[in-house]
Amino acid sequence: MATVIANMSMSLDGFVAHPSSGVERLFGWYFNGDVAVPTAVPQFTFQMSEASAGLLRDATAGVGALVSGRRTFDDAKGWGGKHPMGAPVFVVTHTVPDGWQQDDPNIIFVTDGVESAVEKAKAVAGEKIVAVASADITRQCLNAGLLDEVHVDLVPVFLGEGTRFFDNLDGIIELEDPLTVAGTGVTHLRYRLKGR
Amino acid sequence: MATVIANMSMSLDGFVAHPSSGVERLFGWYFNGDVAVPTAVPQFTFQMSEASAGLLRDATAGVGALVSGRRTFDDAKGWGGKHPMGAPVFVVTHTVPDGWQQDDPNIIFVTDGVESAVEKAKAVAGEKIVAVASADITRQCLNAGLLDEVHVDLVPVFLGEGTRFFDNLDGIIELEDPLTVAGTGVTHLRYRLKGR
Repeated sequence: MATVIANMSMSLDGFVAHPSSGVERLFGWYFNGDVAVPTAVPQFTFQMSEASAGLLRDATAGVGALVSGRRTFDDAKGWGGKHPMGAPVFVVTHTVPDGWQQDDPNIIFVTDGVESAVEKAKAVAGEKIVAVASADITRQCLNAGLLDEVHVDLVPVFLGEGTRFFDNLDGIIELEDPLTVAGTGVTHLRYRLKGR
Repeated sequence: MATVIANMSMSLDGFVAHPSSGVERLFGWYFNGDVAVPTAVPQFTFQMSEASAGLLRDATAGVGALVSGRRTFDDAKGWGGKHPMGAPVFVVTHTVPDGWQQDDPNIIFVTDGVESAVEKAKAVAGEKIVAVASADITRQCLNAGLLDEVHVDLVPVFLGEGTRFFDNLDGIIELEDPLTVAGTGVTHLRYRLKGR
């Protein structure tokens, strides 16, 4: 059975996106170290601390499928047709965007909701990880009880405004104590949801 | 010169208070371990993990004064006249509450704003710590550049609603990577603000 993990870089005041340039501060840790981490896209390589690189290599090797929101897909311009993590992406959307097929092997559009998207992603991922990388999809997954783990890359900055990673959750949800790894410009916190 | 530190227990979705019973989940780590930590109030003793106890003992010994908001004072019923950390509290308020004197030696009411309260607290604290334990006062201090450090006791729970620790900050504020200590039911994260 696949493990479903939501993971994003978050400011200490809880934001994963910012209306102007602030968001770049959340991703400094991808580029502030000596260790090169290639992605599935040949011309795109990260350059980070050894601690962060170890985690990212493991995560990249472990990901069997991703679930994304439509806005993330749009913002990333469809990742040029292939996600940097090298796994198929299930994009939750109301309509298939112009110029794309519903069942491209790398990017699959799911028009019947987040539960369906997670189910399809788990079927593809097998024993590997289903990665959720969108605040809105994470919220829907948490409220529907679909997540096994939440990984926060906590960045030492206050952004003051933007989109929150964890907003409008329905009621109280408990997690186990995290595995903590100190990077440079980031603290990696990996939580398992209680009872998962 | 005193070090001004804001410190609160915060849920992973950023809340330090909750409209109903959820707030109790933020303070479980004070009472879930084997190590007794006496407070300045004889009938009130914490019982926590060794890791958390070590931090709390150091913090308690190091605090020379506190700065609080009026709501925190009201919620705590004036701490029975003496704060558990055993240091004088400067309460930022518009008016001195009924039944209290402005210059009680343990609880001092400051009616001319947060900068004045921090200044008075630093004068009393000498080389020790001025502790800020209120979300609203922390926000005012961050926006006025009055804080040296922010300590977050990050609790593995989503509360879904409540009062946020870090809300409505004015613009981007950078911090150093934190000192991280794993407790039980809490991860202690101690950040220094950049340039302080």
